[in-house]
Amino acid sequence: MDSPFEKSYVKITVIGGGTGSFTLLQALKKYTKQLAAVVNMSDDGGSTGALRDELGVLPPGDVRQCLVALSKSPLMRELFSYRFEEGTFKGHAFGNIFLTALEKTTGSFDEAVAAASDILSISGKVIPATLDNIRLKMKWPGASIILNGQRTISSDYFKLDPRRAILSLIPNAKPNLMAIAAIEQADIVIISPGDLYSSLGPLLVIDGIGEALVKTKAIKVYVSNLVTKYGQTGGFTVADHANEVERFAKAKFLDYVLYNKQKPSRLVSKRYEKEKAFLVKIDKKNLEKYHYRAIAGDLLGEMALPNKSDKLIKKRSLIRHNGEAVAKAIVELYDSKL
Amino acid sequence: MDSPFEKSYVKITVIGGGTGSFTLLQALKKYTKQLAAVVNMSDDGGSTGALRDELGVLPPGDVRQCLVALSKSPLMRELFSYRFEEGTFKGHAFGNIFLTALEKTTGSFDEAVAAASDILSISGKVIPATLDNIRLKMKWPGASIILNGQRTISSDYFKLDPRRAILSLIPNAKPNLMAIAAIEQADIVIISPGDLYSSLGPLLVIDGIGEALVKTKAIKVYVSNLVTKYGQTGGFTVADHANEVERFAKAKFLDYVLYNKQKPSRLVSKRYEKEKAFLVKIDKKNLEKYHYRAIAGDLLGEMALPNKSDKLIKKRSLIRHNGEAVAKAIVELYDSKL
Repeated sequence: MDSPFEKSYVKITVIGGGTGSFTLLQALKKYTKQLAAVVNMSDDGGSTGALRDELGVLPPGDVRQCLVALSKSPLMRELFSYRFEEGTFKGHAFGNIFLTALEKTTGSFDEAVAAASDILSISGKVIPATLDNIRLKMKWPGASIILNGQRTISSDYFKLDPRRAILSLIPNAKPNLMAIAAIEQADIVIISPGDLYSSLGPLLVIDGIGEALVKTKAIKVYVSNLVTKYGQTGGFTVADHANEVERFAKAKFLDYVLYNKQKPSRLVSKRYEKEKAFLVKIDKKNLEKYHYRAIAGDLLGEMALPNKSDKLIKKRSLIRHNGEAVAKAIVELYDSKL
Repeated sequence: MDSPFEKSYVKITVIGGGTGSFTLLQALKKYTKQLAAVVNMSDDGGSTGALRDELGVLPPGDVRQCLVALSKSPLMRELFSYRFEEGTFKGHAFGNIFLTALEKTTGSFDEAVAAASDILSISGKVIPATLDNIRLKMKWPGASIILNGQRTISSDYFKLDPRRAILSLIPNAKPNLMAIAAIEQADIVIISPGDLYSSLGPLLVIDGIGEALVKTKAIKVYVSNLVTKYGQTGGFTVADHANEVERFAKAKFLDYVLYNKQKPSRLVSKRYEKEKAFLVKIDKKNLEKYHYRAIAGDLLGEMALPNKSDKLIKKRSLIRHNGEAVAKAIVELYDSKL
């Protein structure tokens, strides 16, 4: 960062779901005021799923995490991330209830996000990828297996190779035009790390997203996952991840793939291996074949917890991206192109 | 109102619970910027009671209503008053959940109210009468009947004359010193209409409140209820109401009692009579005997509903004070003393 003034006007759009986007947005907001988060809208698990089922609202969870990441108010950040620990509200993040009540009051999720953005005084914009009420569907050509709903897919052990599966949305989703604009008008578009089949997939398959990713003049960077997910991405290399991202979008759009080469401690690795989660392998030979450039970095770090009570995140916070390191690497990539 | 400038600096403190205070505060905020609501803290019924029972918080309901009355943000007013209509949260006012999560996040109800005041951008101050976690108790000397909890008391048909009952708080409550100051430093103190035994009583019996009402140089006005409550204040006259208010406070402090002389329509009266609720009788002879002045006014009106979905309030909104008329009458009283 040798020219902070210029950097504060770089337009950066982060595409993804919950925790992956959260980590990047937190770090990137120090680099620019023009930050947009395009958010997956197919989540139907946990607190979010219960609110969708019971009250017919759009999924608040991923949007909530992005709002918190961009909020300038420490109190509202903590309030929004607060998770009830007992009673009727047990397991619900307050921010989810907040967005739900706002959607009911204003009559639209879009207005709810705008109002919440104001109340949380966020820097940047949080943009639902679609405003349609959708569920994710996954099926294999020629096979009878069909998975319905993100909560099924994220908990399922795939019996067939997911790289052959077709992801779609029920009903077919129109893209949010603000999301298309945020991609097309950006200087940098980042595909954040996250679950391939239950987070990035259902966002990238939305009609028009792939076209926008091709059309934009932004540099497009995919930040690869750090560990594999048992039964879903077991054995996947960095190139496998990047390939799936492009397959979802039906477009060869990636300029860079940023991957981690830093090793976590033996202790941490072992804990992951118990859950059959392994470090994503770096397949240099394969990477070299592709149209994008693969960039290695030391990207491991501790996750910034929005809230002490958010055990869900705490539980997962072992092998995590260092948001600062990722942000720095991407901004440097952009600078080197100028 | 012939001198609006002076009026905007009159210090007015409204003492009471939910709906009664709500109506007055809404109207009074047009007259002054120095408005304080001292709020009953013994509610343990409905949404408020469930949150107290399950999460151990202080009662948010009455405070919520006062915050909404004083809020300058139409969106936040509506959001705070929004009541979930289905699912797990059914019956809960969002504002109650908001205050609960804020109390959990900030660690104190006091800070939660301050933060909410900010978020709702209220004019004036909302002051819990006490910050102790209390329940109301009612017993009759020499009788074995003891009622515990405001929810019991407000739903109970009293078998003995409530005017002989002793109201107390378990545990004994310390007053909030901000409440004492709001009473002592006011120019006008208003005891708002409301349930005698489940709203005004548990507030006025708090140690120190009665003394403050005697000590203050403010004019003190009690706005009498419009209708009686079956099994509790059946047959009570205006003077009976005023006497009970002073008995709770253990002090002869009232300067004025403002009562309504306007008749509602036959239709509305009849609907009330079906629930054995009758217009509070005006007992001129008795009123003349007392140390305070009884003032008659045409005070009936439609209640301003904070939210269309708030059926609880809508249901009750038949015989209501006209907040404007009450505010005007009180400000005129104050002016006539100047």
